[in-house]
Amino acid sequence: MRLAYAAAALLLSVHGAAGPLVLQTDFGLEDHAVAAMRGVARRVAPGLVVDDLTHEIPAFDIWQAAYRLHAVVNYWPSDTVFVSVVDPGVGSDRESVVARLANGQLVVTPNNGTLTLLHDGVGVVAVRRIDESKHRLPGSERSHTFHGRDLYAHVGALLASGKLRFEEAGEATQAVRLDYQRPTIEANRLVGNIPVLDVHFGNIWTNLPADWKALTLGVRYRVTITGPDGARRFADDVPFARTFADVGMGEAVLYVNSVGKIAVALNQASFAERFDIASGPGWRVLVEALPALE
Amino acid sequence: MRLAYAAAALLLSVHGAAGPLVLQTDFGLEDHAVAAMRGVARRVAPGLVVDDLTHEIPAFDIWQAAYRLHAVVNYWPSDTVFVSVVDPGVGSDRESVVARLANGQLVVTPNNGTLTLLHDGVGVVAVRRIDESKHRLPGSERSHTFHGRDLYAHVGALLASGKLRFEEAGEATQAVRLDYQRPTIEANRLVGNIPVLDVHFGNIWTNLPADWKALTLGVRYRVTITGPDGARRFADDVPFARTFADVGMGEAVLYVNSVGKIAVALNQASFAERFDIASGPGWRVLVEALPALE
Amino acid sequence: MRLAYAAAALLLSVHGAAGPLVLQTDFGLEDHAVAAMRGVARRVAPGLVVDDLTHEIPAFDIWQAAYRLHAVVNYWPSDTVFVSVVDPGVGSDRESVVARLANGQLVVTPNNGTLTLLHDGVGVVAVRRIDESKHRLPGSERSHTFHGRDLYAHVGALLASGKLRFEEAGEATQAVRLDYQRPTIEANRLVGNIPVLDVHFGNIWTNLPADWKALTLGVRYRVTITGPDGARRFADDVPFARTFADVGMGEAVLYVNSVGKIAVALNQASFAERFDIASGPGWRVLVEALPALE
Repeated sequence: MRLAYAAAALLLSVHGAAGPLVLQTDFGLEDHAVAAMRGVARRVAPGLVVDDLTHEIPAFDIWQAAYRLHAVVNYWPSDTVFVSVVDPGVGSDRESVVARLANGQLVVTPNNGTLTLLHDGVGVVAVRRIDESKHRLPGSERSHTFHGRDLYAHVGALLASGKLRFEEAGEATQAVRLDYQRPTIEANRLVGNIPVLDVHFGNIWTNLPADWKALTLGVRYRVTITGPDGARRFADDVPFARTFADVGMGEAVLYVNSVGKIAVALNQASFAERFDIASGPGWRVLVEALPALE
Repeated sequence: MRLAYAAAALLLSVHGAAGPLVLQTDFGLEDHAVAAMRGVARRVAPGLVVDDLTHEIPAFDIWQAAYRLHAVVNYWPSDTVFVSVVDPGVGSDRESVVARLANGQLVVTPNNGTLTLLHDGVGVVAVRRIDESKHRLPGSERSHTFHGRDLYAHVGALLASGKLRFEEAGEATQAVRLDYQRPTIEANRLVGNIPVLDVHFGNIWTNLPADWKALTLGVRYRVTITGPDGARRFADDVPFARTFADVGMGEAVLYVNSVGKIAVALNQASFAERFDIASGPGWRVLVEALPALE
Repeated sequence: MRLAYAAAALLLSVHGAAGPLVLQTDFGLEDHAVAAMRGVARRVAPGLVVDDLTHEIPAFDIWQAAYRLHAVVNYWPSDTVFVSVVDPGVGSDRESVVARLANGQLVVTPNNGTLTLLHDGVGVVAVRRIDESKHRLPGSERSHTFHGRDLYAHVGALLASGKLRFEEAGEATQAVRLDYQRPTIEANRLVGNIPVLDVHFGNIWTNLPADWKALTLGVRYRVTITGPDGARRFADDVPFARTFADVGMGEAVLYVNSVGKIAVALNQASFAERFDIASGPGWRVLVEALPALE
C-alpha cells in the first residue's frame, strides 16, 4: 500500500497537485520575456499548469491590468494563482505582494493599483509583502529590471505548487488602490465612463450597471458619448437588445456585456473605429430614457 | 490494491484522462476573452490539456475558421475536442452543435458553415444540437454575447474530460454548409481560386490539386492571377519545384503546399505584398502547361 | 503492489515523464502552422508539456532565433527539449540536427547558425544530423515546405518523451556558426553593437559586458550610437542606475539588462522610437568614461 501512496506522491510531485498558474503582463509575445517566466515556473514545478491571461496589456497600463484580472478571476478554479506584471516601477521601492481573494485565489503583483478592482469586486481578504531576501529566484540578485522572471513567476510557482504558503510570503500589508469614477444612477438617466474597449471587435464597454430599472428589451434609449476634450462623438437613439444579431448589419445596439455592464456596439462592425472612440476615465457616456410618445 | 486504483483514479480525475481541448476563435489575444474560456474549461477538468489552434481568425470570417480546422485536424490525436467560435450570430437562433468526425474527433461550434470543409474532407459522421437548457455554464443565463465562454468552452471541456458523451449533447441535426467553388481540372490547364493566404509569409495558396498529371518538377507553367475586380495582378511563367530554395532569392516558384495543393511564392519575400493579392472566392488562378518548344 | 506500479506507469505514459518541449518559430500565430506542430507532438506523447518560446521571430532572421534561445535556455529545466524553426533553406540540402547543450538540454533545429550563441555561451557538447529516412512524421514524405511539422516537432516530441535517444538521432556532425562581432573593451571605453532590441518597450540592448570595471552606480557616461549608414543617432551623457525608475519620466538611463549586458532606455518611453534605432551588427555603440571634474 505504501507503494501506491509513493507512486501517487511521485506523480503529484511531478505533475503538480495544486492549482494553475496564470500569467498576465505588458511584455507582448514577440520576445523571450514570457518564455523566461514560464521556464522559471517549470523549474519550480515541472508539471504545473501554466496558462496566460493576456500579455498584450498596453505598456505600463495598470488600470487595464486591474480590469482584465477583475473580469476573469471568477471563471477560474479557486486554487488558481494569478501573476500580473505591469510594473512601471520595477526595481524601485514599490512593494511586491501576494493578495488572497475572497474566493480563495491568490494574486502575485507589484502593489501599484493592480488590485483595485479585485478589492472592490470579488474582495481582497489579505495582502502580504513578498520578502525578496527569501523568495527571489536564486542567483538573480544582480538583475533589477525583470522581476517578472526573477521574483513574480518564481513566487507564483512556489505558491501554486504548494511549496510556499501564503502566510510565509512576508509581512502583512495593504493593497494600493487607484482612484476611479463611479457611475451616477438616476431613475431616467445614467452617467458613466468607458473603463475599457472590447478592443478586438471595437465595442464600447461602459461602467453602467445593467440592472438599471428603466432598461427594457426592445426599447430605444438616447446614448451620448463625449471625449476627454469635451467634444461629442456620438449622439443617437439606440435600441436595447439581447445580442448584436437583433439589429441589422452595421446598426447600433445597446446590450449587456459579458461582465454585466451596459455596452454599445455595431452589428459586425467597429463602433470605436467608426466614431473614433477610446477608453479611459475622461470619456463620458450618458444613457437616457426617452419621453414616452403621446 | 484498492488504494492503487484510488490513487490512479484520483490522478486521472485531477489530470484528465481524455483528449486535448483545442480552441479557435476570432477574439485575438489582447483581452481576457480567451482566458475566460480557458478558465471555464479548467473548472470542468483541472488537468485537461487545453491548447490553441489560432485566435487570429479575421473577425466573423467563417470560411477561414472552416479552412484552418480542415487543415489541422488530422495532425491531432483522435480523442481531440476542437472548439471553434467565429460566431457573428451569437445569441440569435442559429444552432450550437457538436460534430463527430470520421476520425473520432469532436468539434463544438455554432452551426454556421464552420463544418463545411470538414464535411467534404475528413468527413462529419454525426451532428447534435447542444441543448443549452442542460449544458450551459451554470449561472451564465443572463449573458447573451459570449457563448465562447458560457457554452462552447464549457461543453468542450465536458466532452474532452469524458463528463458528457456525444450522444447526450442534444438531438441529432445537420451541418450547415457554405457554398464554394471547386476547381476546374483539364489536361493542360487548371482554374481555381485562393481559399486562404499563407498570411505570415505572403505565399498564395490555391485550391488546385497537386496530383495534376501535367505537373513535372523543373518545368515552367503559365500562372495568371486575377482579382475580384477582373484586373490581372500577375501573369508570368513560373517553375514548379520542391521548395522555395530551389529558385533564386526573390524569384517566384510553384510548389505543393503543406495541405497538398498547388501554391505560388517568392523565395524569402512576400508574393501577396509584391503583387497586391488577397484571398477569397472572387480571386481566380489559372495554371497552364506551356506549349512544348520545337 | 504490481498494480500500483502499473497505475503509475500508465499515468507516466499518459502524461509524459520527461521534460517539456518548447517551440520557437518565425511562423506567427495567425494561421494553423504552430497548431499543426503541437498536434504532431501530442500524437507522439499526449501528456507532454508543450510550451512556446516565441513565434514572432522576424521571418528568416536566424540571428534573432539564436539570440532568443541563448537568452532563455538557462531558465528552463535541464531535461527541456527546444525546437527552433527559422528555416529559409527548408527542403534544400541544409542539415537538420539535434544539439546537446552542456546543461543537458537538447535543441532540434536546421543547422543554419541557430546554434551559434548557444555554442559560445552555455556550450554545445555534441551535434547529430537527424536521419530523415528514419525519424520523419510517417506519411509526410511528399511535403517539402513544412519541416516544422513534418520533422522538427515530431523529433522534438520523440526526444522529450524518451521515445528516441539523442544518440539514435543520426550521425555526429558539427554546428554551423554565424560570424559576429565581439565588443572591444578598454579601461575607459567600450565599443560594441546592438544584437537585439527589447522590442516591446523600445530599449536598446548592447553586447557590452556589465562587469566593465569603470562602471559605477550614479555616474554618467558618454553614450554614442551610430547607424549602419555611419550617421550618429544619439550622443549624450547618461547616468548608470539600477533601474528605469531611478531617473525621471522620459529620461535616459544606462542599466544592466536581464541577460547581464549594458543597455540604454528611457523611463516609460521608447528609446528606439524616439531616436530611430534598430538592431544588427551594423549598429555601433560607444560607451566612454567622462573625464573627472577638477
